[in-house]
Amino acid sequence: MKQSIGAKTLAVPTPVWLIGTYDDKEKPNLMTAAWGGICCSRPPCLQVSLRAATYSHGNIMKRRAFTVNIPGDDYWREADYLGIASGRDTDKISNTCLTVTKSELVDAPIVEQCGLVIECKLKETVELGLHTMYVGEIMDVKANESALKDGKLDIKKIKPIIFNPGDSGYFSVGEKISDAFKQKTPPKNRVKQHHNRCC
Amino acid sequence: MKQSIGAKTLAVPTPVWLIGTYDDKEKPNLMTAAWGGICCSRPPCLQVSLRAATYSHGNIMKRRAFTVNIPGDDYWREADYLGIASGRDTDKISNTCLTVTKSELVDAPIVEQCGLVIECKLKETVELGLHTMYVGEIMDVKANESALKDGKLDIKKIKPIIFNPGDSGYFSVGEKISDAFKQKTPPKNRVKQHHNRCC
Repeated sequence: MKQSIGAKTLAVPTPVWLIGTYDDKEKPNLMTAAWGGICCSRPPCLQVSLRAATYSHGNIMKRRAFTVNIPGDDYWREADYLGIASGRDTDKISNTCLTVTKSELVDAPIVEQCGLVIECKLKETVELGLHTMYVGEIMDVKANESALKDGKLDIKKIKPIIFNPGDSGYFSVGEKISDAFKQKTPPKNRVKQHHNRCC
Repeated sequence: MKQSIGAKTLAVPTPVWLIGTYDDKEKPNLMTAAWGGICCSRPPCLQVSLRAATYSHGNIMKRRAFTVNIPGDDYWREADYLGIASGRDTDKISNTCLTVTKSELVDAPIVEQCGLVIECKLKETVELGLHTMYVGEIMDVKANESALKDGKLDIKKIKPIIFNPGDSGYFSVGEKISDAFKQKTPPKNRVKQHHNRCC
């Protein structure tokens, strides 16, 4: 039986991304965001959604660029801290073990310790309510060499954090289930049953 | 060392969601989408991005509603199939063990076998290129009673599939790392090191 739990942002999985920006004094800032996702393949785009009250929100408006830095799950404490403190009154990055360099492609900083970094130029701004959605066009993706094999990205080396808004928990990525785009015909050996699992 | 891998949609994690719609003959359709994410807390909104060529794209345009049905990882074959076949020339749902009922809140079908279902009314349409981004306002979320404990959603009972665009692989959710919103002060016992991991 299903139970109504209200009109809430309870989708899963959501990401744990460090959004990198510069302020107007060139101070780099990182803010943790879970409201985001890919939104177009051509041009390649992703969206991250931030509250207007955040320091990063103003930075993106002014610099029209940001990075998405994907921390490994051993950096969950840094990610958690960077989602609580504000760059408005703290140099958050200096308070952590993280270090940044300037992207050569976009006006935003790159986190050296993140295994996967996505450099974005602001393409669209959509005001939705409490959050502003920033659509960034992906200019390049950079990955640790150790996470690449035959040009493919090994998620078990990147070790992204999964956020569950339903219990405010961080989770790791588990085992590989299968390659995608294999099941070109309907799956067999399944029985259609109402109100019940079928496998 | 980081290596450039080009301007590609290689963010992680991405979700595996079944987008539920009706066509103009009331035929329900399900399409698998990985380009999506939450994008606003108030009003609660999420976005899913679909190519104009898909059958679901036209359905959302006409009915101005959709559901996000989150299949457990034992349904990866169904999810994979529903992402390859088209509802334009097949009754995809009939070809699987999945069954749907009509949402009472929005003009879209709900998948009975999915442990978590999000009912959305279309709020915004953003044309980005190959993909159209549909922003849906979340009208309600329904979860299996077995996945709820003290009002919290157990992601290990929902078992969402994680998609890695970097190797086209499906993954399960792993172990819980921590509760979020704990690290109000900078993490201790870390050494700042350039070009190196710090923990």
